[in-house]
Amino acid sequence: MTPNDFCSIIERIAPKSLALDYDNVGLLICPEKNEIKKVLVALDLTVPVAEEAVSGNYDLVLTHHPIFFDAVKSISPETYETAAAYKLIRHGIGHYAAHTNLDACIGGVNDVLCELFLLSDVRPIPPENLGRIGLLPKPMPFSDFCILCEKILNVKGRFCGDPKRIVRSIGMIGGAGGSDVQAAFDAGCDVLLTGEMKHNQALLSEHLGLNCCVMGHYETEFPVLKPLISRLQNENNDVQYVLTHSGRAPLRCL
Amino acid sequence: MTPNDFCSIIERIAPKSLALDYDNVGLLICPEKNEIKKVLVALDLTVPVAEEAVSGNYDLVLTHHPIFFDAVKSISPETYETAAAYKLIRHGIGHYAAHTNLDACIGGVNDVLCELFLLSDVRPIPPENLGRIGLLPKPMPFSDFCILCEKILNVKGRFCGDPKRIVRSIGMIGGAGGSDVQAAFDAGCDVLLTGEMKHNQALLSEHLGLNCCVMGHYETEFPVLKPLISRLQNENNDVQYVLTHSGRAPLRCL
Amino acid sequence: MTPNDFCSIIERIAPKSLALDYDNVGLLICPEKNEIKKVLVALDLTVPVAEEAVSGNYDLVLTHHPIFFDAVKSISPETYETAAAYKLIRHGIGHYAAHTNLDACIGGVNDVLCELFLLSDVRPIPPENLGRIGLLPKPMPFSDFCILCEKILNVKGRFCGDPKRIVRSIGMIGGAGGSDVQAAFDAGCDVLLTGEMKHNQALLSEHLGLNCCVMGHYETEFPVLKPLISRLQNENNDVQYVLTHSGRAPLRCL
Amino acid sequence: MTPNDFCSIIERIAPKSLALDYDNVGLLICPEKNEIKKVLVALDLTVPVAEEAVSGNYDLVLTHHPIFFDAVKSISPETYETAAAYKLIRHGIGHYAAHTNLDACIGGVNDVLCELFLLSDVRPIPPENLGRIGLLPKPMPFSDFCILCEKILNVKGRFCGDPKRIVRSIGMIGGAGGSDVQAAFDAGCDVLLTGEMKHNQALLSEHLGLNCCVMGHYETEFPVLKPLISRLQNENNDVQYVLTHSGRAPLRCL
Amino acid sequence: MTPNDFCSIIERIAPKSLALDYDNVGLLICPEKNEIKKVLVALDLTVPVAEEAVSGNYDLVLTHHPIFFDAVKSISPETYETAAAYKLIRHGIGHYAAHTNLDACIGGVNDVLCELFLLSDVRPIPPENLGRIGLLPKPMPFSDFCILCEKILNVKGRFCGDPKRIVRSIGMIGGAGGSDVQAAFDAGCDVLLTGEMKHNQALLSEHLGLNCCVMGHYETEFPVLKPLISRLQNENNDVQYVLTHSGRAPLRCL
Amino acid sequence: MTPNDFCSIIERIAPKSLALDYDNVGLLICPEKNEIKKVLVALDLTVPVAEEAVSGNYDLVLTHHPIFFDAVKSISPETYETAAAYKLIRHGIGHYAAHTNLDACIGGVNDVLCELFLLSDVRPIPPENLGRIGLLPKPMPFSDFCILCEKILNVKGRFCGDPKRIVRSIGMIGGAGGSDVQAAFDAGCDVLLTGEMKHNQALLSEHLGLNCCVMGHYETEFPVLKPLISRLQNENNDVQYVLTHSGRAPLRCL
Repeated sequence: MTPNDFCSIIERIAPKSLALDYDNVGLLICPEKNEIKKVLVALDLTVPVAEEAVSGNYDLVLTHHPIFFDAVKSISPETYETAAAYKLIRHGIGHYAAHTNLDACIGGVNDVLCELFLLSDVRPIPPENLGRIGLLPKPMPFSDFCILCEKILNVKGRFCGDPKRIVRSIGMIGGAGGSDVQAAFDAGCDVLLTGEMKHNQALLSEHLGLNCCVMGHYETEFPVLKPLISRLQNENNDVQYVLTHSGRAPLRCL
Repeated sequence: MTPNDFCSIIERIAPKSLALDYDNVGLLICPEKNEIKKVLVALDLTVPVAEEAVSGNYDLVLTHHPIFFDAVKSISPETYETAAAYKLIRHGIGHYAAHTNLDACIGGVNDVLCELFLLSDVRPIPPENLGRIGLLPKPMPFSDFCILCEKILNVKGRFCGDPKRIVRSIGMIGGAGGSDVQAAFDAGCDVLLTGEMKHNQALLSEHLGLNCCVMGHYETEFPVLKPLISRLQNENNDVQYVLTHSGRAPLRCL
Repeated sequence: MTPNDFCSIIERIAPKSLALDYDNVGLLICPEKNEIKKVLVALDLTVPVAEEAVSGNYDLVLTHHPIFFDAVKSISPETYETAAAYKLIRHGIGHYAAHTNLDACIGGVNDVLCELFLLSDVRPIPPENLGRIGLLPKPMPFSDFCILCEKILNVKGRFCGDPKRIVRSIGMIGGAGGSDVQAAFDAGCDVLLTGEMKHNQALLSEHLGLNCCVMGHYETEFPVLKPLISRLQNENNDVQYVLTHSGRAPLRCL
Repeated sequence: MTPNDFCSIIERIAPKSLALDYDNVGLLICPEKNEIKKVLVALDLTVPVAEEAVSGNYDLVLTHHPIFFDAVKSISPETYETAAAYKLIRHGIGHYAAHTNLDACIGGVNDVLCELFLLSDVRPIPPENLGRIGLLPKPMPFSDFCILCEKILNVKGRFCGDPKRIVRSIGMIGGAGGSDVQAAFDAGCDVLLTGEMKHNQALLSEHLGLNCCVMGHYETEFPVLKPLISRLQNENNDVQYVLTHSGRAPLRCL
Repeated sequence: MTPNDFCSIIERIAPKSLALDYDNVGLLICPEKNEIKKVLVALDLTVPVAEEAVSGNYDLVLTHHPIFFDAVKSISPETYETAAAYKLIRHGIGHYAAHTNLDACIGGVNDVLCELFLLSDVRPIPPENLGRIGLLPKPMPFSDFCILCEKILNVKGRFCGDPKRIVRSIGMIGGAGGSDVQAAFDAGCDVLLTGEMKHNQALLSEHLGLNCCVMGHYETEFPVLKPLISRLQNENNDVQYVLTHSGRAPLRCL
Repeated sequence: MTPNDFCSIIERIAPKSLALDYDNVGLLICPEKNEIKKVLVALDLTVPVAEEAVSGNYDLVLTHHPIFFDAVKSISPETYETAAAYKLIRHGIGHYAAHTNLDACIGGVNDVLCELFLLSDVRPIPPENLGRIGLLPKPMPFSDFCILCEKILNVKGRFCGDPKRIVRSIGMIGGAGGSDVQAAFDAGCDVLLTGEMKHNQALLSEHLGLNCCVMGHYETEFPVLKPLISRLQNENNDVQYVLTHSGRAPLRCL
């Protein structure tokens, strides 16, 4: 598979046109060789992920978060912003980022969250259409939904809103969805499940009466990786797609 | 006590000149009467806090976070940004905000955190000098410090870094301190204890080897309120300073 | 009548879509009660107008000029920009502003001026379409028209251009119309009647040969109020619309 | 006298360093000849003034208001912004503007106003120091002062404030001084006498209790011209300084 | 011919709508008289060209490069930016500039270059469509093309790229075309012939493998003048169009 | 020698504080190894220079022009802006740029030009102090100086100004010095020798009467390299500094 072949495949899944304007997506580091046999898949291009790519003889690292989100004017193996990029280039390995386009696409970050919770009637949350809203199989008290969240995502969360309220329509915005509180409310969500929420965004949720489950940036984006690998693998069995064993949530409960 | 008297007293504690440029601090809503007898103290000027001020016949609400952080061109009892302000003005009650100046001042948000953890050799973290760095009474493994954090602040946290690392110098930045990861590292912190941290700020911490404890925005700012009330009360016993019973963390653990 | 009912009625007369981009129009302060029985009407929301609204038990003040033309970050009963707003909110009274939409709408500020002068063939002055151009019943020397202006508007004016010139097509731009001198000339006006004109705008008028009558900001906008009240009153007789007795031109002749 | 000589003389009277940042002052059109024998003096460089300069064989036109206040990308004898400039250049005549530096300088626009009203203890109004504040020989009711204004400046004015108030300290800001209402009030003026004031500036004056006399832009700047000519003439009797007979207020009472 | 007649004629040849947004084209200085009998044609409105216009009793100077490319706030016979303009206005002579519209138009700067080299299949270079691409009558080594360039344009050039490469499709961008290296390459040019190219633009050409001939700004624009004069002369024989004898390349070989 | 050692040495010669604000200088790509034994020196970091660095086992490439002059958000071996950087990083080779600081420093680009022409009384040209002005050993006609230029720099140039004028004070600005025509004239230069000059800069030179020699960007900067290598070599004989054999002027005469 050439790099161009890979781009065609991933962009059929997560078209670049779905990415938000400010984003930096696509083939951000070209691999040196024109043949790609092994692709490492992770949420973040950290130094440990880059080292795993080197030691495992990968040709490409596919991540959700882009390297070079801000443009750079120098490259060093020491600096946080460029260390992993340095290591990849040093070994001829490429880097592809599918970020907000992977949030927004069919079968992407937020659709996978919906599937985990068995939501039905799933549709995008306007106006950005990154997130999703769908219905639980049956209504339940918010306190029960919180327990379900921690069980399904296997992490302790933080929650906002009345535990006794019966909820059914759930908004799913993996990652930093706190800026979409108003959008989720306007779309009719009883609950917004997301990864990160700032203090004043939580106060807005309380004011609106939108219940929220804040489960961690990593924990709400990680679930997309395995289904994504399956879809990519299905396209082409000569290429090996591997989920990183170096990735983990940077912020963890005790 | 006149409103001017109150301003003089609080500004001796938290001088407005310490506030960051972008901030909006001071007497943001004038009380109608020229005599202040009861002051309600809270982190946020939410609608429940405003309602408590009304029902309790308070003359002024003193909070950490300002109303009108962004300027407004209309005022309504329904809109999140202005609802509490509407209620206060409607009843002639004033609002005073001490925000980044209360972070930065002696005995402020971050000094109180240092006291809770019995830190010594406390000094500001440059360049903004809002946060503090100080030394634990004795070094301990990071995992022990994490347990201590949850005990002292009485909340579950999220943590980043090697649990076995022996730590002693602790950076304290109540509220949203994630943007100061590099500053805390440069100042020599082994650990940064703060309220909020975004995903890529946590990745930067991991890269730098700066351990972090992320304990909640509310939970890391709330401790300042009682000592602040004591200091204000000491100045003048004709005035009654009361800690709100309507405030609580908007994001809570199960 | 609910506040929403009122908005529907006034916006049928002066649609918000007619307002210029920079403007701040609509329900800028929500009334506390959901029923509106008495509406005070004025050009400006000054402190005396607000006091009249309080003492007269009005539910809403409708003015031409908006409060909060510039956004605010604090509210005080002392400050010019917020004093009247404070007083209204303090008493649960609302404020609605119809500004450039009332200039531009059918039957608005400038149409009423045209009616006062019995103009025919009235049409908007492009490109903003706030002002109007129309024809006098018969041509007359500009000096006669100036005398007519002072008589009809009952105020001394200032005038620019040749007194002997025979004029017929009159441009009407109530308020500060000096920035539209070129537009009025291009539209074919012999005369521009307006409220305010800066020195260099008057020099431009002289250069173009556009005669001008500058009659005062207040005096050229005030005439719209009575017809506006009549139209509003006709919609609903359960509500009482009253013209303020506290409003007057801030700048007056001896 | 060379153009450079002229610049030295006028800039000793009205140093360019006193001009505000946005202003455009100095020798804006170079005269063709290196010898200046006749200088025409006016407030504005209008086409009639330029024509007088041509027919009178002047070498230079000195005005208060600059041509090219906004920069130009084309020059035409028809366009308002460039017509007079075209005529001067066409005949080799120069143009010098002393604008806000002539407002601010000793013996400038505002000092001359103070002298007309026999004010004592005259000092600049901070922070721009263009205007002046001084004391009347004796206090008088504002209504008397208004009559005095119309008599001294020989024009009908518009007035704001309580006619019965006894006034003594007068702020003088020739031209468009309405933006300095707050500054004049802060400086302790009982009255602000100026040329132009916008509607909302007049409302601010009323709110502050600052009485105002608005006498016309031209009428409040014209008085400086004769004393300025005397001072210039005293420097050099080989040059002839002449007050234009083509200038007049563009806006006039009936 | 009136100035308006002239504008109509030249704008049929080089429509103003073809000019780039940042450009300043059209009748930048109005001639004093309403009848145009003699037009001087040049690339630049320099002082010698203006002097030739004066001594030759021209009514208008038509140039490629506009005077007042940057807006001015003063005019002097000494300053580079305004000296020639001063001289023209001083003598009532007008100035018309046809700049990027003359590059882009049919029969303009770049079409004339194509004709000189007998190119066929000529079409615009997207996206700006100022330049042209066309085919040589037959392919030749780049070294031969370089010799041809120096012969046809009668000037020594500078060249970039492999002398042995066989070239046929030539991009023509008179004047400063270095910023269009990528556009010329994308359009399929073997060679870009232009007037000016900066160092890093030449490095980009080398990187892309786009051969370049850099022949001088003046030398690549001058050829349009004679055909342009012919076309204008054909429209109207009562007017005399004359090519300046004061123009020459400011930068010349030994 | 460590990379830090190298930085110290080069920055004693060309202090980073001398670089202009917009510039990007210093260690732009970190070498992988901490020991530097071979340094390749060139004007530009082109792909051929990078390939020479790879094949010659260099540890660092020192150039005048920086890679990443504009910040980048992706890195590819194909793209002009990043191809050479890719190749260096791929092989662990570093890149150091000394740009405007090497122009400005003692013994830098412009001082070396002065030495080539045996100028005396050499001093910086204000205000940027990148260029130099100095005196020829004896005055000569400009035509003789032009011949001398071509001989000393071994390239054909372009020239502006009167060949017969006797010149002595020469301004030296290697590279793109056309924007400093006015500065060179103000500093008292008879002649400005530089590498690149745009058409309107040449017209300004003609207007001012400043003679110019435009000799090529590369040709006026290349002379600094050998003396720079000597100075670096003198500091440390364990390191090998080598002048690239892959560099050459991108634009060349026939």
